[in-house]
Amino acid sequence: MEITKRNFKSLLPNILDAIEKCDFIAIDAEFTGLRPTGYNLCELDTLEERYAKIRHSAQQYGMIQFGISTFRYSPNTKRYTHATFCFYLLAKPGANEVIDTSSLNFLANNGFDFNKLYKDGLPYMTLKEEGEKKLKLKETPLEGTKPSPVKVTEIAAKTFLKETENKIVAFMKDENCQEMILEGKTLTGFHRKLIYNNIAAKFENILIQSVNCDTGGKNLLLKKFNSVTARLQHLEEERQQNLDEKIGFTHVIRKLLESDKPLVGHNCFLDIAHLFEKMVMPLPEKVEAFKKMVLTNFPLIYDTKLIAKDPPFSADIPNTGLEALFGDLCNKYDPPLFEVESGLESHSIRDSSKAHDAGYDAFMTGVCFVSMLKTLEGPRWTKKSLVESKHLLLYANRINIMHSYDIPLINLSASDAQPDRSKIFVVECPESWSQADVYGLFSLLKSLKIVWVNSTSLYVIPTEEIDMKTCRKHLKAIHATCPPLVHVRLYNDSAGSKRKSESDSGPAESLAPNPKEFKRLKSVGSSQLSQMTLESPSADDNHKMITDDIGGSKGGKNDVTDGVFQVPDDW
Amino acid sequence: MEITKRNFKSLLPNILDAIEKCDFIAIDAEFTGLRPTGYNLCELDTLEERYAKIRHSAQQYGMIQFGISTFRYSPNTKRYTHATFCFYLLAKPGANEVIDTSSLNFLANNGFDFNKLYKDGLPYMTLKEEGEKKLKLKETPLEGTKPSPVKVTEIAAKTFLKETENKIVAFMKDENCQEMILEGKTLTGFHRKLIYNNIAAKFENILIQSVNCDTGGKNLLLKKFNSVTARLQHLEEERQQNLDEKIGFTHVIRKLLESDKPLVGHNCFLDIAHLFEKMVMPLPEKVEAFKKMVLTNFPLIYDTKLIAKDPPFSADIPNTGLEALFGDLCNKYDPPLFEVESGLESHSIRDSSKAHDAGYDAFMTGVCFVSMLKTLEGPRWTKKSLVESKHLLLYANRINIMHSYDIPLINLSASDAQPDRSKIFVVECPESWSQADVYGLFSLLKSLKIVWVNSTSLYVIPTEEIDMKTCRKHLKAIHATCPPLVHVRLYNDSAGSKRKSESDSGPAESLAPNPKEFKRLKSVGSSQLSQMTLESPSADDNHKMITDDIGGSKGGKNDVTDGVFQVPDDW
Repeated sequence: MEITKRNFKSLLPNILDAIEKCDFIAIDAEFTGLRPTGYNLCELDTLEERYAKIRHSAQQYGMIQFGISTFRYSPNTKRYTHATFCFYLLAKPGANEVIDTSSLNFLANNGFDFNKLYKDGLPYMTLKEEGEKKLKLKETPLEGTKPSPVKVTEIAAKTFLKETENKIVAFMKDENCQEMILEGKTLTGFHRKLIYNNIAAKFENILIQSVNCDTGGKNLLLKKFNSVTARLQHLEEERQQNLDEKIGFTHVIRKLLESDKPLVGHNCFLDIAHLFEKMVMPLPEKVEAFKKMVLTNFPLIYDTKLIAKDPPFSADIPNTGLEALFGDLCNKYDPPLFEVESGLESHSIRDSSKAHDAGYDAFMTGVCFVSMLKTLEGPRWTKKSLVESKHLLLYANRINIMHSYDIPLINLSASDAQPDRSKIFVVECPESWSQADVYGLFSLLKSLKIVWVNSTSLYVIPTEEIDMKTCRKHLKAIHATCPPLVHVRLYNDSAGSKRKSESDSGPAESLAPNPKEFKRLKSVGSSQLSQMTLESPSADDNHKMITDDIGGSKGGKNDVTDGVFQVPDDW
Repeated sequence: MEITKRNFKSLLPNILDAIEKCDFIAIDAEFTGLRPTGYNLCELDTLEERYAKIRHSAQQYGMIQFGISTFRYSPNTKRYTHATFCFYLLAKPGANEVIDTSSLNFLANNGFDFNKLYKDGLPYMTLKEEGEKKLKLKETPLEGTKPSPVKVTEIAAKTFLKETENKIVAFMKDENCQEMILEGKTLTGFHRKLIYNNIAAKFENILIQSVNCDTGGKNLLLKKFNSVTARLQHLEEERQQNLDEKIGFTHVIRKLLESDKPLVGHNCFLDIAHLFEKMVMPLPEKVEAFKKMVLTNFPLIYDTKLIAKDPPFSADIPNTGLEALFGDLCNKYDPPLFEVESGLESHSIRDSSKAHDAGYDAFMTGVCFVSMLKTLEGPRWTKKSLVESKHLLLYANRINIMHSYDIPLINLSASDAQPDRSKIFVVECPESWSQADVYGLFSLLKSLKIVWVNSTSLYVIPTEEIDMKTCRKHLKAIHATCPPLVHVRLYNDSAGSKRKSESDSGPAESLAPNPKEFKRLKSVGSSQLSQMTLESPSADDNHKMITDDIGGSKGGKNDVTDGVFQVPDDW
């Protein structure tokens, strides 16, 4: 069900009720952009660096659609009942947001209705802002100080004042009439000022408001009350209603937080970041503070992409992008039965071509979640809601990290593993350097992977078995043949390097990897790692073909020399 | 006629022809925002300050629609023949632009089709970029260096290589077949790499390209040529065509510049600024450089708002907003007859409800222009194109400055007049100060106007006749009663003030006003000045009513205490 500011108020009780009753809530969101210029993801980002990029993206771009799909298990029918709400979100009037033309082009081509968004998008604010606004309201008088009457000397103005005053006196006497309209087209700015400053001040039991009229422009609406108290109460109610409208979608997020229901997303790092930045409070600077903030607010989060990357699914689901995963799970596995929550709307697993609608994506995520859990749980699955499955323990509060060489996830409720990067070479080179130059310099390595950070810095990862001693020997040989402007060192060697994240807690080697996390890392599967190797190095190259390298962007050189084709982003 | 990337190529000859044949070109544009946060217009902006705000707006926001209406006079039929083209513009893929949610909400409510924009918007680039790209193309080889073949050890990969090679040999022999498709869904990233690195390098007369397939994903398209030369020529043609597509709308702007036809806009400072920033070259920092740049590129620009503000129109056209002006000119005056250029499309003066479509606005601007000139020219108007009217001399290369207290225009081809601000008081006050505090401090003045710059700085303009001596006397008296944190001085007195623009060429009093410009300033008419006084102080207040002051923004205090109602912006 699509939710805009037109139907939000009337549907809010149903939405809150669906959240209240469900076992878990699947979410998805659409944004005006993903990767700000200069913030491309790098496969060797540290977790702190990756978080900084995600945070920057959430601060800069807008969240324009949020999908919520509520699922609850009915033991009687052995079915999952679901309801889906797709919210069109438009930041408050006058808010400035950045858009990425490619992202909006992609969404428009996938059926996103931008006219609906810009006409009827639902506003929102952070819970922090909501609190501040409520506090401020308490301190602000319902009305400002009375305006001083304007001195009137012109005869025309005097006549206007007298006539209007007579009209209002008659209106106050007429018991059948509670409201009066003064037509805007007959009123200049000066007339309006006179009415407000000279007339309104005289009649304590009326309220003057400017209202849009059908023909454009603004009429003046006069409302009559029995007492000043009644007028003030009316103002108070209007103020509350107005605030409620501005809070908008945040009413739903507050309920989500209060409900303590598990949240399920697919590759949902960015979704969670946007959700906090826009509807809870600004994202903190450091990833540890972020983890704490998320866990304080949501007790339990699952990421379906992580589950899908593990056995048994990793064996026959090569692409864990949401749409592909959904298709494979529905076809190759045996999903439970689903039915739409009575009186509400949702999707069917036979709907297609709705992907990239946040509501449908949330629905697919929920279906993937229960389908995978049913598989893991085996025949016992009918006993109770799958959300209580012990198979979930491994995945609780772990979120997938995409496009990373060696950090498969972020663990919200524990310290994150530090990958061993001791055998990775860090290279600084002149801008003119190409992939071929790098291969030349590293000819001692039989098999390697190059990760460009930008046009003058890159990593070389040996992809053969190699011990630390050989690594150091190679480094020595490389230093001997290295051109003067090229600098090579090993990842953990200090070099005052720009790339070594200053925000890391210490050198990677000093932190022993958490064995459990290390096991998980292994379970990512070599097929996925080799796929990563072939992905385009940056989002900037999305629109390039090999024969189309006229832009001259830095990323281009990799395309041409490496023959890398665009692999669709499985975000 | 709406122009997108779907129909641009086929219609371009008609567009260029219409520009070639016309007497003048009316233009209008729509943007993703008008006033960036912190850049609100102030009625006492210096010209340099105002230009800086316009420039910042053009740098930050997107131009999403550009309307061109070409008009030519036919002496035989005594009619104006016109054609209108409305271009949907979307900056190049991956470009980041800022949007103002209020602006897009306004446009969506006025029928702007954002789905069309984001799906099919036409790209553009500056002429400067175009030149750079062409230069770069000349220097860039058509193909990158040959990729090195990948070492293949796995049996499956070896089999794939052999099979594919056999297919290609057969394809090369088959004279009836010029193209072959390898289906994307059968190809992993590794397979693609093998085809590109190992197979393509072997067959010099084929070209491998990645193409989108209907079912999503990408196929590989193999094209066959008779010789390497033929293949390179094909690549060269593709490259040129690709560049042409990327140049997009800039083809039209180049023609506009080359045609030397007069350009007519309505309140077009921002339109011109965007046009240069996006399609010619980045805007310079200083207003004098901007004036020079515009005049170097366009020999003649008219602004219909300036003509409308002068007699005889000022007498019975109170609102010079485009739509109101158009209505008044069509109803109260006697516009010439119009007809649509044969074989092309345009609008009719009886079309309504199309306002804020850049094409229709450009059309209205053109109609306003000839209607006013016909009135000014009198019965002689039928003799020749009105564009040659001597009445235009007064308006040539002068552009309206909106929402200014004393600078009605910018003169592109001469020095701009410096308004006399010697009797204006500059006030710095604590954030807690309200309008009432200012009135209290300035109680010596019988009549005054307050212009807030921000919450701690404002101007007080005496609106009664007052001589310099009295001004100084008042200042002395004010200083005597002034609270410690309030600072008051006269505009021309030095104070190391933040508000006195550092970029002005010197103090205002040292520059004698140009008498001709001063006359023009007078002709703005007192009715307009008094209207200005009543306009809301800032764009931020657009969405406020008097009873709706819960936001607590700085601008709010003016609204409440001054009783200022929203007056629609006549941009």
